[in-house]
Amino acid sequence: MDETLGSIGTTASLSLRLGQALFSSASLLFMSVGVEFYSYTAFCFLVTIMGLLIPWSCTLGMLDVYSIFVRCSLRLPSLMVIVVVGDMVLSILSLGAACASAGVIDLLIHAEGVYCPPKFCGRYQLSTAMAFLSWFLTAASSLFNLWFVASWWT
Amino acid sequence: MDETLGSIGTTASLSLRLGQALFSSASLLFMSVGVEFYSYTAFCFLVTIMGLLIPWSCTLGMLDVYSIFVRCSLRLPSLMVIVVVGDMVLSILSLGAACASAGVIDLLIHAEGVYCPPKFCGRYQLSTAMAFLSWFLTAASSLFNLWFVASWWT
Repeated sequence: MDETLGSIGTTASLSLRLGQALFSSASLLFMSVGVEFYSYTAFCFLVTIMGLLIPWSCTLGMLDVYSIFVRCSLRLPSLMVIVVVGDMVLSILSLGAACASAGVIDLLIHAEGVYCPPKFCGRYQLSTAMAFLSWFLTAASSLFNLWFVASWWT
Repeated sequence: MDETLGSIGTTASLSLRLGQALFSSASLLFMSVGVEFYSYTAFCFLVTIMGLLIPWSCTLGMLDVYSIFVRCSLRLPSLMVIVVVGDMVLSILSLGAACASAGVIDLLIHAEGVYCPPKFCGRYQLSTAMAFLSWFLTAASSLFNLWFVASWWT
């Protein structure tokens, strides 16, 4: 089971990490540049989680590049457990942040008594869509690595 | 690996299913009896997902009871795949619904121009807390069954 699709050290894993870094950066930029996100707790949470996801994905992407080019396996039990737990926690947090933001945006658009300028609302929506894509890729990485660990352990 | 902790047909699995049914019923009741949830998309989504989670958990709980008392293993490959996929989809949806509701409640409490009567707000918060507990147990069931399937497949 050394070549489990998408587990750490494969090109599929590198693609997933690149996608995560790209979408989370896009989400962070759409939310934080030129719009007022700090008035809403859900948007602050989204920015925090995307800010954590970017260095995590980049670090693991660099480990994948190292593993692919140097042809050196990095599948040590302790490293795999850290990667699985980290991916799982970040995927849960990013899904939570994206859903909370989506709920808030819906309320901002439809509720009476609240006004959301169209320029701001469009940016919030784009940022949330990018966060959902980023969550999807993080969850995929997490599941592939969990599958690999489970098949290895037994 | 026949006795993987928490996989279908064990008493741990039955306890998880009972907890899921209990918390999702509590969440549904707190949200839908006597309060106006239908004005907010996030709360409607929460009610829908909790309404799906209750029959799912009860059905699998009954399968666990059958398996424990009749001592007949229900670990058929096709059934396990359905259980893992169903649990995973429902845990993602319940986390999403709980987070969206939490985001909306925070906005209702803190935003200017929106008023939330304390009685209603308290009920929304209780319902969301129950939904988070229900999600936690569903995610645990899903991971235990995924671990069992992964260790079985390889």
